[in-house]
Formats: sequence, structure tokens, C-alpha cells
Amino acid sequence: MANPYDLAHELAKALRESQQFQEYLELKQKIDANEATAKMLEDLRSKEMSIQSKQMMGEQVSEEELDELRKLYQIVSFHSDIQAFLDAEYRLSVLLADIQKIIGEAISV
Amino acid sequence: MANPYDLAHELAKALRESQQFQEYLELKQKIDANEATAKMLEDLRSKEMSIQSKQMMGEQVSEEELDELRKLYQIVSFHSDIQAFLDAEYRLSVLLADIQKIIGEAISV
Repeated sequence: MANPYDLAHELAKALRESQQFQEYLELKQKIDANEATAKMLEDLRSKEMSIQSKQMMGEQVSEEELDELRKLYQIVSFHSDIQAFLDAEYRLSVLLADIQKIIGEAISV
Repeated sequence: MANPYDLAHELAKALRESQQFQEYLELKQKIDANEATAKMLEDLRSKEMSIQSKQMMGEQVSEEELDELRKLYQIVSFHSDIQAFLDAEYRLSVLLADIQKIIGEAISV
């Protein structure tokens, strides 16, 4: 019988070596290497997070805040490094969600 | 290079076949087969959940509710099938948490 711990370590290694993770890492390093780009992404994240947490708490999100977010998306849309990073991050998130789903379904009762 | 999807399926199979999951399943079926036992466990879960969600929302939990929970724990402590099930459930949760940790660490940046 296969040992789940051994397989989990094999899977962990395969994820680290996967194209999705390697591209994500590479693009993240590119972003982190440029202070202005990193700041731009950080602003976007922080605005997204702030609006999301308000929505989750059932609080009103002002039109002004949504405008700020739209502006940040627009700025970022012209920035190919950030676009490439967000795309890579999305592809990685799909892979991880698939893996979670496969494991989760195995032990659902 | 190993394919993460193949390994996830192998891991899923290993988890399903693991002693922890098989024992959990067996004991769960035993509980589900006895209506009174199933009801007892359901009451415990529902009381635990209600108190936990109050605590998470920062609401006051009354001494009366805590007493009810203590009583349920006491009743359940004399019930060997439920005890065995809760133990099996705990061992399974440790296995799953370990697996999540191994996978999570692999892709932390």
C-alpha cells in the first residue's frame, strides 16, 4: 500500500518543479526586483483586499473606492510584467485548486 | 518530470486506502447505523458549532450553553462507539493536516 506521506512529498516536489510554479516564481522575482512595479502591485492588492473585506462584512463600498480600484486595474493593464505575473498566478491557482479538489473528493464521505 | 495531476490521483488513492481513512469510514458507518448514537453525535456537533460560531463572531457564550456542552461531552464519554469515532476522526485530521502542510510548504514563496 502506498504511503500518503511519501506521495505527498513527491507531489510537493512535482508542484515545485511544475511549469506553472516556475513561471510564477520567475515573474515574481522580476516584479520584486523593480521597486516601482512591486509598489504598483502592492497598491492593487491592498485596494482589492480592502474592498473584499468590506463586502464580506456586508459593509457599503463607496463609488470612490471602486473608481480607485478601476484606475489601478487600468494602470496595471499597461504594465506587461504585472500582467504576465497575474496570468501566471492565475494558472498556478487553477493547478492548486485542481489538486485540492482531487484530494478532497477522495476523502469525502 | 512528474505530473502533479497523476501524483495527486495517486495520493488521493493512498488516502482512501489509508488505515486512518478506512477506520474512520468503518466507525462512521457503525454510528450511522444506530439512530440514537447518530443523534447523540449530531447534538454534540451542533452545540460545538453554535458555540464556536458565537466565539468567532465575538459574541458572549452563556455559562448555560457551556454547561450543556460539558454534559454532552460527559454523555459521549461513556459511549465507546462515539469515542472510537472521534479518535479516528482526529487521527484522520492529523494525517490530512500533515499532507496540506507538506504541499503548502512546497509552494510557499
